[in-house]
Amino acid sequence: MSNRAEQTEGRGGVSRVEAFSDGVIAIIITIMVLELKAPEEEDLSALWHLWPTFLAYVLSYAYVAIYWVNHHRLFSHARRVTSGLLWSNIALLFALSLVPFSTAYLGEHHFARDPTIVYLVTMLLPAVAYAWLQGEIMKVAECSAADQRYLIATRRKGQAATVVYFLGVPLAFVTPWLGIAAAALVAVFWCLPFSRLDALFLPEDCAA
Amino acid sequence: MSNRAEQTEGRGGVSRVEAFSDGVIAIIITIMVLELKAPEEEDLSALWHLWPTFLAYVLSYAYVAIYWVNHHRLFSHARRVTSGLLWSNIALLFALSLVPFSTAYLGEHHFARDPTIVYLVTMLLPAVAYAWLQGEIMKVAECSAADQRYLIATRRKGQAATVVYFLGVPLAFVTPWLGIAAAALVAVFWCLPFSRLDALFLPEDCAA
Amino acid sequence: MSNRAEQTEGRGGVSRVEAFSDGVIAIIITIMVLELKAPEEEDLSALWHLWPTFLAYVLSYAYVAIYWVNHHRLFSHARRVTSGLLWSNIALLFALSLVPFSTAYLGEHHFARDPTIVYLVTMLLPAVAYAWLQGEIMKVAECSAADQRYLIATRRKGQAATVVYFLGVPLAFVTPWLGIAAAALVAVFWCLPFSRLDALFLPEDCAA
Amino acid sequence: MSNRAEQTEGRGGVSRVEAFSDGVIAIIITIMVLELKAPEEEDLSALWHLWPTFLAYVLSYAYVAIYWVNHHRLFSHARRVTSGLLWSNIALLFALSLVPFSTAYLGEHHFARDPTIVYLVTMLLPAVAYAWLQGEIMKVAECSAADQRYLIATRRKGQAATVVYFLGVPLAFVTPWLGIAAAALVAVFWCLPFSRLDALFLPEDCAA
Repeated sequence: MSNRAEQTEGRGGVSRVEAFSDGVIAIIITIMVLELKAPEEEDLSALWHLWPTFLAYVLSYAYVAIYWVNHHRLFSHARRVTSGLLWSNIALLFALSLVPFSTAYLGEHHFARDPTIVYLVTMLLPAVAYAWLQGEIMKVAECSAADQRYLIATRRKGQAATVVYFLGVPLAFVTPWLGIAAAALVAVFWCLPFSRLDALFLPEDCAA
Repeated sequence: MSNRAEQTEGRGGVSRVEAFSDGVIAIIITIMVLELKAPEEEDLSALWHLWPTFLAYVLSYAYVAIYWVNHHRLFSHARRVTSGLLWSNIALLFALSLVPFSTAYLGEHHFARDPTIVYLVTMLLPAVAYAWLQGEIMKVAECSAADQRYLIATRRKGQAATVVYFLGVPLAFVTPWLGIAAAALVAVFWCLPFSRLDALFLPEDCAA
Repeated sequence: MSNRAEQTEGRGGVSRVEAFSDGVIAIIITIMVLELKAPEEEDLSALWHLWPTFLAYVLSYAYVAIYWVNHHRLFSHARRVTSGLLWSNIALLFALSLVPFSTAYLGEHHFARDPTIVYLVTMLLPAVAYAWLQGEIMKVAECSAADQRYLIATRRKGQAATVVYFLGVPLAFVTPWLGIAAAALVAVFWCLPFSRLDALFLPEDCAA
Repeated sequence: MSNRAEQTEGRGGVSRVEAFSDGVIAIIITIMVLELKAPEEEDLSALWHLWPTFLAYVLSYAYVAIYWVNHHRLFSHARRVTSGLLWSNIALLFALSLVPFSTAYLGEHHFARDPTIVYLVTMLLPAVAYAWLQGEIMKVAECSAADQRYLIATRRKGQAATVVYFLGVPLAFVTPWLGIAAAALVAVFWCLPFSRLDALFLPEDCAA
């Protein structure tokens, strides 16, 4: 019976999951700016003290925006809503909802070692949930060769990003800035348009 | 005339009620994370003091997410907007909007007895509003046997959840953790995919 | 050219205005609950001190919810987006955005005279913007007799509500509770289903 | 492959970008009101001290609302989602997300010189991102003569607004109020309905 409910919902049901996800991601990305508090001093020099909070905001904004872009593309392949899709999506939104917390922690402590490690770990959690979501959507995606290729390429790209974040943790023990550099590298890498770089992640053939 | 307005709106009107509900639920679920404030100390050990706030957040996130999933499924059966549907939905959103408050109260006081009782009572209010909403939607739902069976099974499941929350209140007087366990039990129970457990709540026949 | 842009947008354009309004109203209605801060004391008696904040929240939640319901019904009559519609809608959302402020002011000062007056004045502003919006939508609404009757009846109802809020201001000088009673009266009056009461506001004939 | 994904998404993909943008803009415009804190004193005279915060809110609300209106119109010309469109839109939302910060800074320091300059600079950033977005959408817009004329006229209007903000910066060194007047002038200018003024910005012919 659950199966039946899922099948009759179709793309309409998918739209509502997208809309809810958009709402949650929009709030996550926007409440981070609340950390950027207006300085009590009037002159411009007081603004410079905000740079760690601002830099942490820029990094996390880019991070969440990339997740939104990928989420957007991934869901365009979903044909119907399943329990697995719903719960993996809810897990992803939960993981992303921790980003404002670790961003505030990172900014307030001026990119110190421990907050940097916490930040990188928080960046890893959504990757795990996203991999789960991707698996669930591939189960119900249309099996056109191009779709499969796209999904496989993005999965590999996501795995590469996860490895970089993971390597960032020991690097942050050396100096936090190496950890931050790892996070920034992944952001730049995802923002680049689909190009030669992506070719690295494309499967040899479509018989996935 | 009111009837006429309702009938001409049809599914388009239902979509907007869904969109508004999604917006409110997205905000409710996300503002709870604001309670998770970055510790002033830099080292990781300061993070451990956040565990009650974090645990309360996880519980309430799961709770609100379950309501969203059920709301999503329930509304896919609504054929048109009635006054009863609008007001019962608004009552449900009001009841859910109290969750961030009681979650903060629970987390800040480390799962003490009184906040636990307030928390369990707050969990009961949405159940009452949801039962009302369900009744209103059943009035305007298409009467296919499978739809009816689904709606009746979910209603029984909701009633079982309400009984567990209700039992949690006296249990919290013994020790708050028994009350919290009741809340966690319901969350786990709802997250499980439709399965043998659900069969318990299915009506014997469709002639509801 | 502007006219052309408006005409080609049609219902699609209206949907996006609805979606944006839903977003803003959802946030307005939800951020009010942030005023309800968890008490620092653990025991239940500390909760009782929150009653004025809670009561103010209930009143304002009902108020904003009523506006959302009416906005929802009103927009189902809009056939296309005009500049007038856009700006009157933005003015309405602005007026509603002041409600959380005056609600906080009312609750924190335990329904004292001055905050009550400020609250009632804040309740009057959306009424003015709504009347403007209604005028703009009537210009582009389909002219079926039933639609016209509905729009005229709601406009009269809105005017009656405005008069009650207006009378609430001098009554609040006698005792604030009379002012609050005026606000509560309007809320109850709008929540009632379309019924005999509405008949009072229906035009005699459709040749409006 | 990326191209293929873009083409198959079509208007449905555009809708989701609009919905996400609506969510972010709705939150940006609404969280600004949180700066308007209820005074601790009970009497009305305490409210007068809020005028700079209130005036800054009104200015920024109008500013963000104008961007939403223009965004709304601009996107009605988008036929499909490209990487360029996604990232320029994300850049625009980022630039707009800084508005609540500079608004708070402006209001709290009663329109002093330095906050006014920061405010005007914050007003310039979205203009840059918007110009980029507009260029991306023109690439994928349908090339009807009227569409082209509309897009070109708006682009010129945007350039004129940017010049006025830019001139506001040195004027703010003379007295902050001249800078604020520049910001207010642009707001009034955009709020005016399409009219004779717009004719100034229309291209001579459509062969853009």
